[in-house]
Amino acid sequence: MNPRIEVGILGATGMVGQEFITFLEGHPWFDITWLGASDRSAGKPYREATNWRLDGAMPASVEGMHVEECKPGNAPRLVFSAMDASVATEIEQAFAQAGHVVVSNSRNHRMDPDVPLLIPEVNPDHLKIIPLQQRHRGWKGQIATNPNCSTIVLAMALAPLKQFGITRVMATTMQALSGAGYPGVASLDINGNVIPYIAGEEEKMQRETQKILGDFTGDSIRPLAAKVSAQCNRVPVVDGHMVATSVELEQKPGTAEFIHAIESFSSLPQERKLPSAPPHPLIYLTEHDRPQPRRDVERERGMTVFVGRLRECPVLNYKFIALGHNTVRGAAGAAVLNAELMYSEGLLD
Amino acid sequence: MNPRIEVGILGATGMVGQEFITFLEGHPWFDITWLGASDRSAGKPYREATNWRLDGAMPASVEGMHVEECKPGNAPRLVFSAMDASVATEIEQAFAQAGHVVVSNSRNHRMDPDVPLLIPEVNPDHLKIIPLQQRHRGWKGQIATNPNCSTIVLAMALAPLKQFGITRVMATTMQALSGAGYPGVASLDINGNVIPYIAGEEEKMQRETQKILGDFTGDSIRPLAAKVSAQCNRVPVVDGHMVATSVELEQKPGTAEFIHAIESFSSLPQERKLPSAPPHPLIYLTEHDRPQPRRDVERERGMTVFVGRLRECPVLNYKFIALGHNTVRGAAGAAVLNAELMYSEGLLD
Amino acid sequence: MNPRIEVGILGATGMVGQEFITFLEGHPWFDITWLGASDRSAGKPYREATNWRLDGAMPASVEGMHVEECKPGNAPRLVFSAMDASVATEIEQAFAQAGHVVVSNSRNHRMDPDVPLLIPEVNPDHLKIIPLQQRHRGWKGQIATNPNCSTIVLAMALAPLKQFGITRVMATTMQALSGAGYPGVASLDINGNVIPYIAGEEEKMQRETQKILGDFTGDSIRPLAAKVSAQCNRVPVVDGHMVATSVELEQKPGTAEFIHAIESFSSLPQERKLPSAPPHPLIYLTEHDRPQPRRDVERERGMTVFVGRLRECPVLNYKFIALGHNTVRGAAGAAVLNAELMYSEGLLD
Amino acid sequence: MNPRIEVGILGATGMVGQEFITFLEGHPWFDITWLGASDRSAGKPYREATNWRLDGAMPASVEGMHVEECKPGNAPRLVFSAMDASVATEIEQAFAQAGHVVVSNSRNHRMDPDVPLLIPEVNPDHLKIIPLQQRHRGWKGQIATNPNCSTIVLAMALAPLKQFGITRVMATTMQALSGAGYPGVASLDINGNVIPYIAGEEEKMQRETQKILGDFTGDSIRPLAAKVSAQCNRVPVVDGHMVATSVELEQKPGTAEFIHAIESFSSLPQERKLPSAPPHPLIYLTEHDRPQPRRDVERERGMTVFVGRLRECPVLNYKFIALGHNTVRGAAGAAVLNAELMYSEGLLD
Repeated sequence: MNPRIEVGILGATGMVGQEFITFLEGHPWFDITWLGASDRSAGKPYREATNWRLDGAMPASVEGMHVEECKPGNAPRLVFSAMDASVATEIEQAFAQAGHVVVSNSRNHRMDPDVPLLIPEVNPDHLKIIPLQQRHRGWKGQIATNPNCSTIVLAMALAPLKQFGITRVMATTMQALSGAGYPGVASLDINGNVIPYIAGEEEKMQRETQKILGDFTGDSIRPLAAKVSAQCNRVPVVDGHMVATSVELEQKPGTAEFIHAIESFSSLPQERKLPSAPPHPLIYLTEHDRPQPRRDVERERGMTVFVGRLRECPVLNYKFIALGHNTVRGAAGAAVLNAELMYSEGLLD
Repeated sequence: MNPRIEVGILGATGMVGQEFITFLEGHPWFDITWLGASDRSAGKPYREATNWRLDGAMPASVEGMHVEECKPGNAPRLVFSAMDASVATEIEQAFAQAGHVVVSNSRNHRMDPDVPLLIPEVNPDHLKIIPLQQRHRGWKGQIATNPNCSTIVLAMALAPLKQFGITRVMATTMQALSGAGYPGVASLDINGNVIPYIAGEEEKMQRETQKILGDFTGDSIRPLAAKVSAQCNRVPVVDGHMVATSVELEQKPGTAEFIHAIESFSSLPQERKLPSAPPHPLIYLTEHDRPQPRRDVERERGMTVFVGRLRECPVLNYKFIALGHNTVRGAAGAAVLNAELMYSEGLLD
Repeated sequence: MNPRIEVGILGATGMVGQEFITFLEGHPWFDITWLGASDRSAGKPYREATNWRLDGAMPASVEGMHVEECKPGNAPRLVFSAMDASVATEIEQAFAQAGHVVVSNSRNHRMDPDVPLLIPEVNPDHLKIIPLQQRHRGWKGQIATNPNCSTIVLAMALAPLKQFGITRVMATTMQALSGAGYPGVASLDINGNVIPYIAGEEEKMQRETQKILGDFTGDSIRPLAAKVSAQCNRVPVVDGHMVATSVELEQKPGTAEFIHAIESFSSLPQERKLPSAPPHPLIYLTEHDRPQPRRDVERERGMTVFVGRLRECPVLNYKFIALGHNTVRGAAGAAVLNAELMYSEGLLD
Repeated sequence: MNPRIEVGILGATGMVGQEFITFLEGHPWFDITWLGASDRSAGKPYREATNWRLDGAMPASVEGMHVEECKPGNAPRLVFSAMDASVATEIEQAFAQAGHVVVSNSRNHRMDPDVPLLIPEVNPDHLKIIPLQQRHRGWKGQIATNPNCSTIVLAMALAPLKQFGITRVMATTMQALSGAGYPGVASLDINGNVIPYIAGEEEKMQRETQKILGDFTGDSIRPLAAKVSAQCNRVPVVDGHMVATSVELEQKPGTAEFIHAIESFSSLPQERKLPSAPPHPLIYLTEHDRPQPRRDVERERGMTVFVGRLRECPVLNYKFIALGHNTVRGAAGAAVLNAELMYSEGLLD
């Protein structure tokens, strides 16, 4: 029997908010009962407050719901934050202060030492920092975050390699348009083009990856000592971030062992059969030219990271390509899976 | 006063052949007087034998020329080869045997130890291998080649760094559709997509770069000892290969020194004012998001490689992005500049 | 309780064949038990004989099935034909001769006077021509066809207007890449481009529309007397044909009446709840800029045609835009729904 | 010997302003000596005030020029207006009032009865309305406008047909991204998509075409009585508007006569060899699949409209496709040619 848990969405009218609503359609545990947005939208029915940008039609379940101001007041205990970074810091803190469990997709608190930057399959133990966060900040509530949409693809692909001792990582991304929100990238800038720059993205990928793959020491998260270098590019693809990766490992495995590590990777969310956990967090594709964003990004509900083209790297040890769905596994789906893990850990009790 | 030199084109009806014809329009030295193609086309006027694939209309100067069989017979001494790799080996050798100077864009002879893999600004001294080639093969003629279209972008960007001692290079490409010829990539495969695989491309980039940046020792070309690793991707862009590059250097220069090396790079073709030599073989763009293929590829007649976004690399020393026009600097223009250098060296006498 | 009916697919390894297999996954009545392809493929497991071109992975249910030659022998009674037009005529006739019910997506027999060109919601009574076909040709079996992928979008949008007396129709299409099969359109031809020509398409749209909207007179199908003019263009869209349409009607309805006719359109397949019948064959979208192919084409399983932007036309009476999924409603889904109707009519008994 | 005429640009920092600057590079008559923009930009060097959006680099000639406020003060007599419609009305009128010749690309005054909506090849006599404009408004200066970017393609293609008596026109457009300015259409909206709506565009095409093809009666411009119906769509193409057109003519010419009318069309700008006049305002392409925007739009400096695929129309008389460069012939180039005609008519004396 499934629990029924009410959830709210901070920033519900924006593009990420819409992705949360879409991803939560028919969720076996979570019912959206509260939608928060800017003062401008507050009081309006969702259908009026929102310019629906996603494919297909707005889900009927939220059309008539009234949008609220983003104040803790009568929101449910669990809130997902899809807030823009320009306003997320204060609002998320106000909710945490007031006792809410804030599961945020915003970047604002990701690198705070006492905030878990969580991928349930990779670092579930980082949730143990939460009591320190609450004590330290005097909060009844809490904030947990998910990584940046390109980081998560890289970090998941690297997770099963941690056992071999990751020392150096080079990652060159080819990132989808939906990663830039709406209106995002002007079509005149990207049609038939590549833009070799995404503001702040390389720094995020480098630092967040180290934190995610780091160890919880009992009172802090010690980042992975590996050197990580990212080069980020925007390409004219709708959904799906590709990460051309090269890694150096202390104990270089054979190719078969490497692929086995990818394919057998499974963790707490799979064990506990969390509703949004993909059966296989990582799938290795054997075709010589896969994964490809348009062809593979929607598979496995967008929650699996696909790896392919493993080959020896003349400079580091191995090179491969990884693909993940940036608005699902890299945003809304990531946060929902985080909340599912937190529920299963008793953090929502 | 300009010399008037007759030239022929092997494989004139194909896409690369069309690029030669377009690039040679109005050339101050070279006059196209002979067009060779398969037996199927031989005897027909060029306009009938050819399905013109390039933008704009077929140049009037070749429309009425009759296509010949690809046999040495009455072709001019200098022939450009735009032949498909499946047939280039024998035909190019037959022409060289018969005394022709074959300036080839085909890959077949590039890695032969006695064939120069030439970029006039980078390794003009590799032409000194030609007498050995002639002696060794008993040829009156000769074959010189230009690199693969993605290699040339990388090798040119690396050339001014050779002084700092290049030890390791990581290159991830985002390559244009025109690099695959015609019909090339199916639109259903690449529309809104990235294909993380180009057959044989990574091997070519790795080996050719080492040969180009190598030294002529007096009787052979000793490849550069640097390790080179390439990851090649196809993106939905018409023209222009982007190469996200990271390098390790023995004597790491400062950023200003690095950029100065790029900007001041100039060589024999510039000194001799060869007709197709760009005033600056490399241009460093200071904008934070350039070069971009659609915006920059046509600048400087497509003969300059653009470099941008230089920054420290946490894994190697520096990372940057380079862009070159794959069908101009990476194919027809490369071969024409090779022929110009060879003429200026007296090799066509 | 659902019937279990074995079906075969002629031309199973091609792109349309793959679309049939995908569409039939989990079908409540039809089980694929036979896959036919060219001699070259015959004898191989489907996974080896086929280069899977569709998004996602090849369905597991067919991977191991052995491909057969396209001969009537031991194929099931009902076969879907996804054959290329160059070979469809003889093979389909051979199967019909041998007693098979051939439900074909090929164009070869569409305009034969004794072959129904069927859209179950539009002209189900055209099936009455089948007994004449059988008598005339001496066949135990039969052939029924579905329209060309662009025709079906237009014909469905026009169907509810027949009551107002259609006299003239102007249709300008913007058609998706998948309509051209694989490899279809070269990416160099269509990237960032429009091609104002699709071989044979305009003629097909003009003639087929008249036949579909025509009347069964008891012994023949009398085409609709309306004049139809089509202009067909290829645009860089993966799936979904758009048809900008203008119509002249004998009894011009008001706008509300026009939209009501669209929205209330429903027919035999809906009444009988055929498995592939969409609840609403036509949906009118009220947004000012819809339908759009990428946003709307996957809705309603791809079986609904979307209409939008109804407005007065200064030249004819009304203009509007229609969108349909060319490989679903315009190909595989069309044929499957045809077969479902034929089963419900007792034609498979 | 060429005249040297100083020109200013109103709205010089915007995208259309940039197109004017690019088009005027090296102009034999006109020297840009004044750049006007919003107060926010005034006082800054152009390079600082402007985010250059066009391909290639900002022309060196304007980089250091200081941007002025859009006030008549010390601007040269001739000013091109690239102003946004939201502010153009008052500013353009202020300049005309102050004695300037305003050659505007903005839509604001196009449909004013006393303002010429000018295509030099089509309706040069409409300039005769100018004295009435000046008298009526009490202006020393004057305003002339060029049509909307899609209208101009249609109106030019129709111009040589006026002799046959145009009675009805149906036009369905496929319009490029650059027609929407910058940032214009969001890439998420148009990547791999078609948007069947452009605000206000259909009305503009319908009315402007009638005015342009109308007759100057001595004291007014009487619009053409033909019925014109437009359906406007945005497609993912960078430059070049395609117009699928169908026409009804009082005296239907034969196909050869129709094509001859297109090809022989020539007018005052050609006769007077105005610097921006294309040798042939219209070119008929005989290939079965041309014109195409990416392949043909840059030909003839973007000043020629290409027509192709003439065929009988079952509903009206003839159908064909027309292509024009929307930012050149449809904007900056149109206005510059207008100014050239006005100079040659003595209107700048």
